[in-house]
Amino acid sequence: MSHDGIDFKLLVGQDIPTRSYKAGEIIFREGDPATELFIIKEGRVEILSGNRLLDSIDGNGIFGEMALIDAAPRSASAVAASDVTVVPVSEKQFLFLVSQTPFFALNLLKVLARRLRATNKSI
Amino acid sequence: MSHDGIDFKLLVGQDIPTRSYKAGEIIFREGDPATELFIIKEGRVEILSGNRLLDSIDGNGIFGEMALIDAAPRSASAVAASDVTVVPVSEKQFLFLVSQTPFFALNLLKVLARRLRATNKSI
Repeated sequence: MSHDGIDFKLLVGQDIPTRSYKAGEIIFREGDPATELFIIKEGRVEILSGNRLLDSIDGNGIFGEMALIDAAPRSASAVAASDVTVVPVSEKQFLFLVSQTPFFALNLLKVLARRLRATNKSI
Repeated sequence: MSHDGIDFKLLVGQDIPTRSYKAGEIIFREGDPATELFIIKEGRVEILSGNRLLDSIDGNGIFGEMALIDAAPRSASAVAASDVTVVPVSEKQFLFLVSQTPFFALNLLKVLARRLRATNKSI
């Protein structure tokens, strides 16, 4: 698991609307405008910049958060590496979660810190 | 300014205890255990991994947050690039700030996202 025990399971309830992608489908492309992030309910997603694999994320992991945090276009592409079910989280929901649920903000900080450490090591 | 308008000025009040370093002094070393992060009240700090300059941060910017977020040793060293006055923030204060002040969590997320984008571009 890519998220190292940092999971967002609490946000993936039974009644929350989901969206599904087939293996190989592009979820979003680098440079796209962004209006939501995603929590993976089932399956695996690869994060790519050009042909470079930046990350591989599975169940209860989060992706697409960068563009929401800094209100910039997608910094990378996301591709379904298997059949995938995700929970989309809108910008409004995201701001609510950051301000109202400390575990969410802290877990998101942990995800970014982990990615930053991994990226710095790979340079 | 390295922090791109993301500043933590609100945490740098008149009566908050500060700590000072002379130009060239090491504030912390890569691999050290970590118990606090820092907000710069005055001066400039360089973040280095080995001989590689990762970032340069000045007034109202934040550094040392990585190790607090993921409870791991310092991911890089911090050196005073000029005479520097900083406000130390303990782990307890940090957790309080993340949970009680949404602007803090969001700004911290923005800092990490910016660093991640910059690092990804430099690979």
